Amino acid sequence: MQLSDLISDIGRRARVASRSLSNLSTDTKNAVLRAMADELLVREPAILEANARDVAGASDHGLAPAAVDRLRLTPARLRAMAEGIRHVADLPDPVNEVLDEWTRPNGIRISKVRKPIGVIGIIYESRPNVTSDAAVLCIKTGNAVILRGGSESIHSNLALAEAMQVGGSRAGLPEDSIQLIPVTDRDAVRMMAQMDDCIDVLVPRGGKSLIEAVVSNARMPVIKHYDGVCHIYVDAAADLEMAASILINAKCQRPGVCNSAECVVVHRDAAEAFFKIAAPQLAVHGVELRADEDSFSQLKTLNYPLLAQASEEDYRTEYLALILSVRIVPDLAAAVDHIERYGSHHSDAIVTRDAVAAERFLNEVDSATVYWNASTRFTDGAEFGFGAEIGISTDKLHARGPMALPELTTYRYFIRGEGQIRE
Amino acid sequence: MQLSDLISDIGRRARVASRSLSNLSTDTKNAVLRAMADELLVREPAILEANARDVAGASDHGLAPAAVDRLRLTPARLRAMAEGIRHVADLPDPVNEVLDEWTRPNGIRISKVRKPIGVIGIIYESRPNVTSDAAVLCIKTGNAVILRGGSESIHSNLALAEAMQVGGSRAGLPEDSIQLIPVTDRDAVRMMAQMDDCIDVLVPRGGKSLIEAVVSNARMPVIKHYDGVCHIYVDAAADLEMAASILINAKCQRPGVCNSAECVVVHRDAAEAFFKIAAPQLAVHGVELRADEDSFSQLKTLNYPLLAQASEEDYRTEYLALILSVRIVPDLAAAVDHIERYGSHHSDAIVTRDAVAAERFLNEVDSATVYWNASTRFTDGAEFGFGAEIGISTDKLHARGPMALPELTTYRYFIRGEGQIRE
Repeated sequence: MQLSDLISDIGRRARVASRSLSNLSTDTKNAVLRAMADELLVREPAILEANARDVAGASDHGLAPAAVDRLRLTPARLRAMAEGIRHVADLPDPVNEVLDEWTRPNGIRISKVRKPIGVIGIIYESRPNVTSDAAVLCIKTGNAVILRGGSESIHSNLALAEAMQVGGSRAGLPEDSIQLIPVTDRDAVRMMAQMDDCIDVLVPRGGKSLIEAVVSNARMPVIKHYDGVCHIYVDAAADLEMAASILINAKCQRPGVCNSAECVVVHRDAAEAFFKIAAPQLAVHGVELRADEDSFSQLKTLNYPLLAQASEEDYRTEYLALILSVRIVPDLAAAVDHIERYGSHHSDAIVTRDAVAAERFLNEVDSATVYWNASTRFTDGAEFGFGAEIGISTDKLHARGPMALPELTTYRYFIRGEGQIRE
Repeated sequence: MQLSDLISDIGRRARVASRSLSNLSTDTKNAVLRAMADELLVREPAILEANARDVAGASDHGLAPAAVDRLRLTPARLRAMAEGIRHVADLPDPVNEVLDEWTRPNGIRISKVRKPIGVIGIIYESRPNVTSDAAVLCIKTGNAVILRGGSESIHSNLALAEAMQVGGSRAGLPEDSIQLIPVTDRDAVRMMAQMDDCIDVLVPRGGKSLIEAVVSNARMPVIKHYDGVCHIYVDAAADLEMAASILINAKCQRPGVCNSAECVVVHRDAAEAFFKIAAPQLAVHGVELRADEDSFSQLKTLNYPLLAQASEEDYRTEYLALILSVRIVPDLAAAVDHIERYGSHHSDAIVTRDAVAAERFLNEVDSATVYWNASTRFTDGAEFGFGAEIGISTDKLHARGPMALPELTTYRYFIRGEGQIRE
């Protein structure tokens, strides 16, 4: 079978499956999820064997040890995956929620009701746990899912997807509700991106070039999970100890994630005192600073050990490492300008005691999540209390910021009448 | 200036304008709208003169008289346009509405707040009133707008856009909030579709080929307003008089619009009795019927005057004319299958006294608006009570069905803390 025929066939099957899926009861869907979790554990030997092939391949291809570790499944990680699925089964089902309801003067009653989207395509890289996370959230919301994972984890992904489909089927999951594309080259992504008759939305999770390949080809809506170039702005009226604590947390607690800070913007009047408090702590964590002219000379005076001059490019960079760009600004407006110009509209924070400045910052910074006196690291489905998360959307439409179950649904209007016609 | 430079320049200016616009107060925005309405009336002679050039050009190019009429502005139509703007000024402002708010165990307070999207591109054809409708709804919701109208109405559109921008400026509208692309070839559309750094969403309103040009080029989200291939399903348990009344209304009241019916699907057990009632009424309205084999022979027996056999293609066709396809089905499931297969997921209705059948139809037909015992002609912002409408979305994400002011907004999460960091 040609690749294009294979992909269209998968698309058509998903569309058929989505029609049955969208009408499953909450109880059936939850039973399906629990059966999926059970089957993952039953198949532990086969899944770990498939995973071992991926891990061996990755080592042979010289993947970095940290990346190999992210790829590796263990009995404990598989148990955690199964637990994660059972947890989603326990969450409330957003489908059929009545979002709004009203009666018009002519007597027609209009209800806006949450419904599954239909078919969701998830395009991701490396970590095999995305296979179960993504599939489970789609099934919970009554959507068929087409998964296209990376080549490094193809054997693990196939084993996991098969386990979930087989386990789920026993409890009533329609055939083809969970399909994994067995081909990992970019052509498959491009073909998926053209199938707007079969796929209602694509969610790419991965590096910039993967997302770019999806965006430039997609005919259907794409919910993007782009970079986080996140800022901490230390205002003139900041509590400087608090500012240092928030900055250290946002930069150092887990530098490799999208909600970590990449740049600190400091008000001119606070800079000297702030650097005195923050620089020693940043140095202890081994953070390299890339500073503008003003801050460079101040940090040099403090003998900061890992100091370089920032280039224009630095301010646009998501380092995902212990590197931080630094910028001194004359006022709040300049801080907002900097963030709007260089940021990625993901998560940005102001630290200040001045409520007026804070509210202005919240209103003028056009990011998915904007913070006053808290760390940007809270941009996360679990930290928001959402129970589950498919990712952090950097888009403005449909879903913005942490994306949970409701963001995997659409709505329909039901209109009930007694023969009304339009005059 | 090259076309590409011109379009990028317009995009950049819109982005700048959108930042000021998003922070305008409701009062200022409403004052801006009223000033826009005033200026339209002040400039009546210039606008009508510009319009006369378009009308003359259209007649010269052999545009159909009905199309020329849609293009024509009169003092009364201009007054209606101004009235429409004042009406939008009186509507509630959705911006800054708190959609949700909660406090986490660690004390951070999360607020989900409605905010403008940023820059909206509207791509449309022919009727100049879209220029004011679209601009006004975008300004009300704090968005900058880039308008790209059709060549037939370019002089009218330029005159209207200038009047709105100049009038609005007097009341505080930021420069470049309303821009009209002065070039009407398709290259301009393709360039707009690539500018995802400057335009947050595109809303194409027009024929299929225009929408297709946008969809296949766009890097940003597109909210499509595609065809309405709408169905009336006459169930076995239908009140047949009601079914005929709804069908006549949905087909004949205004056949050229997207929410009119294009196909009647009839349950086998109701067909003979239904045709006896409906056929004479359809004949009076001069409706041509394109019938499947079963219904063809029944309608032939009734001597229906305008009868043809339906092709496969007929069932996919949005006639926008007094033509109706007819199909007899053995049961509800077959009716749903037909609608899912041939329909455009816009508006579909069941006529029945059987509540169980009705609820099944509502749940299984995956259309933006699904009706029980009412005409599909109610799919409309005004009929829904929305006060204003930018169109009918046939998409599933962000906006579905009638799109009003809230659908021209996004949201941001504001998180207020007291120094919280993530453990």
